[in-house]
Amino acid sequence: MEPLDSRRSGRPVYITVIGGGRCDAVEYALAQSVGRLLGNQGAILVCGGLAGIMEAAARGAKEAGGVTIGILPGHDRTPANPYLDFSITTGLGHGRNLAVVSSGDAVIAIGGGYGTLSEIGLAAKIGRPVVILSGWRLQRDQGTEGVWYASSAQEAVTMALESISRSTDDQAARRRGK
Amino acid sequence: MEPLDSRRSGRPVYITVIGGGRCDAVEYALAQSVGRLLGNQGAILVCGGLAGIMEAAARGAKEAGGVTIGILPGHDRTPANPYLDFSITTGLGHGRNLAVVSSGDAVIAIGGGYGTLSEIGLAAKIGRPVVILSGWRLQRDQGTEGVWYASSAQEAVTMALESISRSTDDQAARRRGK
Amino acid sequence: MEPLDSRRSGRPVYITVIGGGRCDAVEYALAQSVGRLLGNQGAILVCGGLAGIMEAAARGAKEAGGVTIGILPGHDRTPANPYLDFSITTGLGHGRNLAVVSSGDAVIAIGGGYGTLSEIGLAAKIGRPVVILSGWRLQRDQGTEGVWYASSAQEAVTMALESISRSTDDQAARRRGK
Amino acid sequence: MEPLDSRRSGRPVYITVIGGGRCDAVEYALAQSVGRLLGNQGAILVCGGLAGIMEAAARGAKEAGGVTIGILPGHDRTPANPYLDFSITTGLGHGRNLAVVSSGDAVIAIGGGYGTLSEIGLAAKIGRPVVILSGWRLQRDQGTEGVWYASSAQEAVTMALESISRSTDDQAARRRGK
Repeated sequence: MEPLDSRRSGRPVYITVIGGGRCDAVEYALAQSVGRLLGNQGAILVCGGLAGIMEAAARGAKEAGGVTIGILPGHDRTPANPYLDFSITTGLGHGRNLAVVSSGDAVIAIGGGYGTLSEIGLAAKIGRPVVILSGWRLQRDQGTEGVWYASSAQEAVTMALESISRSTDDQAARRRGK
Repeated sequence: MEPLDSRRSGRPVYITVIGGGRCDAVEYALAQSVGRLLGNQGAILVCGGLAGIMEAAARGAKEAGGVTIGILPGHDRTPANPYLDFSITTGLGHGRNLAVVSSGDAVIAIGGGYGTLSEIGLAAKIGRPVVILSGWRLQRDQGTEGVWYASSAQEAVTMALESISRSTDDQAARRRGK
Repeated sequence: MEPLDSRRSGRPVYITVIGGGRCDAVEYALAQSVGRLLGNQGAILVCGGLAGIMEAAARGAKEAGGVTIGILPGHDRTPANPYLDFSITTGLGHGRNLAVVSSGDAVIAIGGGYGTLSEIGLAAKIGRPVVILSGWRLQRDQGTEGVWYASSAQEAVTMALESISRSTDDQAARRRGK
Repeated sequence: MEPLDSRRSGRPVYITVIGGGRCDAVEYALAQSVGRLLGNQGAILVCGGLAGIMEAAARGAKEAGGVTIGILPGHDRTPANPYLDFSITTGLGHGRNLAVVSSGDAVIAIGGGYGTLSEIGLAAKIGRPVVILSGWRLQRDQGTEGVWYASSAQEAVTMALESISRSTDDQAARRRGK
C-alpha cells in the first residue's frame, strides 16, 4: 500500500464525518461531495459505518480513491455500508460515538439528530475541531469555541483541514517553548 | 433502609442532573435548589460525581434527605464530591457520560460546556426526556422533540417528573394494546 | 440514611461479586452466603444487576440489611433482579464489565463463564484484589499476583476485606514517604 | 487500493493479535512470525496499537505486505507503534479491549498479563474463536469451549483461520435452514 498524502510529519490526516443514519437526497449528495473532496486530499475518512450520511461520505471518498473506515456500534459487520475499506466493531452501542469522533483530527457534521449532537459535544470536549455543514445550530452565552459553520462542502473541508494545520502549528510552537 | 417515595410501581424515580465541573455561584445555587426539590420528592439523584454543578445538585439533595449517586470517569473515588451516598467508578473517561444519562429516567441540564452538550444529545438519543434550565440552546429545522426549557428550578423539576409520568403512561397504554 | 460501617476513613467499603447470569443451586447458595456476610460487615455490594450469581449475592446482602447496587448492560432497568437498592444502566453491553469491577474495592468471583473471566482480568489489571471462590483456575509462568482462591464463603469475604485493608495500609505508608 | 485476499464472500478476514505491551525477545519474535503469516494470508491484522506484542505482530504483518490497524486506549495517536497503517483512538481506557477483540473474526493471544486475560474472556464471550499461543492456561469444570492452544506460530494462524471458515460454514448451514 502506498503512503497516503500527508499534512503532518509522517502520518495521514483523519477526518470524521458524522450525521444521521437516514437522510434526504440533498444531504446525501452533500455528504458525498464532502467525502469526494476528502478523498481527493488524501485524508482518511472515518465514520460510524452505517447508512445515510455515513454511507454517502464513504461513497464519495471511495469515488475519489480515498480510504474509508467505519466504527460500528455492535459486534456484527453486517450493517456496515458497502463503501468501507475497513470496519471496526465495538459492541458499545452509542458508547462508540466517542471513538468515532476521537479518531478524526477534525470532525464535519452534516444534518443528523441527537446522536450527531452527542458526537459534536464529545468531539469539542476532547479538542477536536468541529465544522457543522448543516443541521444543528448551537448557542450559549459563553460562545461555542472550537465549532464552526460552513455553507458548502468545499468550505467545510477547507475549514476542517485548516483547523488541523492550525492546531498542529500551535502544538509545534508550544514544543519550541513559545 | 426504608423504601423511597415512588412514582412508578415498585421502583423509585431516578433523575440525572448534568452540568459543568466548574460553575459560578448563581448556577451553583440553582443546581442546589434543583437537588433540594428532587430530594424532597424522593427522587434518586444521579450525576457525574465531580465538582461544580454535580456537587451542588448532590448537596441540595442531601440537604433534603435524598439519596445521591455519582458515576465517575476514572477508576478512583478520590475526585468524588462529598455529597454522594454512593459512587460508581467506570474507567471509561467521557464514555461514562452515556451511563450518567442512561441511569436517569429524565435529565436536567444546568449550564455546562461540551461534555454537557454530549450528555444532552446522548440522553435524547436514548429517549430520556431532557429539561434544560440554563446554558445550551439548540436549534435545527426538524425541531428538538424530547428537549424542554425551564426557567426556574421548580419548573425544571416539575417538567422532569411530569415527562416521566407521561412516558410511563404511554408505555402502559401501549401495553394495553392502544 | 444512616452512615454505613466503614473500614476506610470516611467511606464505606464496596465489594463487587461477579459470576454467571445462570447458575445451579449450589452456586446460588454460595453467592447468597457471600452476600449475607458482606451485608453483615456493612459492605456495599456491587454486581452486574442480572439473575444467577448476581441475584443471589444481592439477595443475601439484603437479608443481612446491606445495600446493593447493580450495573446493567442495557438502557433498561427491566432485567434487574429484585434485590437491588439502586441500579445503574449503561448501554455499553459487555463494556459495562469494566465499571462493575472498578466500582468494587475488591472482587469476589463465583463460577461464571467468559464474561466472568473478562471481569477477573479487568479487575486484576486495574489493581483490584480478586478472590475466586469457585469456577475459574488461572495459570501462567509469571504467576497470578493479585488473585487468590478461597474455599468457603467466609474465607472469600475475609480475604477480600483483608486485601483492601492491606492495600489501604500500603497507600498510607507510601503517603508517609516510606 | 487493491481488494484484499478474502476467505468470506466479499470481505477480508480480520485477525486480532493480543498480548502484553512489554514482552521478551522470544515472545516478540513469535508475535512477529504470527504477523508475517497473517500478512501472507491477506488477513487484516488488528491489535491494541501499542508496543510489545502489538508492535511485533504489526511489524510482521507489514513485512509480509499486510494491512494493520491499531485501536488505542486514549485520544492521542502518539503512543501508537510505527507499524500501523491505520489507528483508531477511543478514549475508553481498558474499555477499548472490547473493540479490539470484537474487530477480529478470531483472536490470537501471545503471552500478556491481566489485560490480555480480559480480552480472552471478552472475545470468547462474544463468540470470537480464541487461540492461545503462549501465556495463559485456563481451567474450569465446564471446559473452555471456543478456546484452543497452539504450539507454534504456524499452528496458531492455521487454527484461527480454520475456526473462522468453520463458523462461517455453520452460519451458512443455518441460513439454508439446517
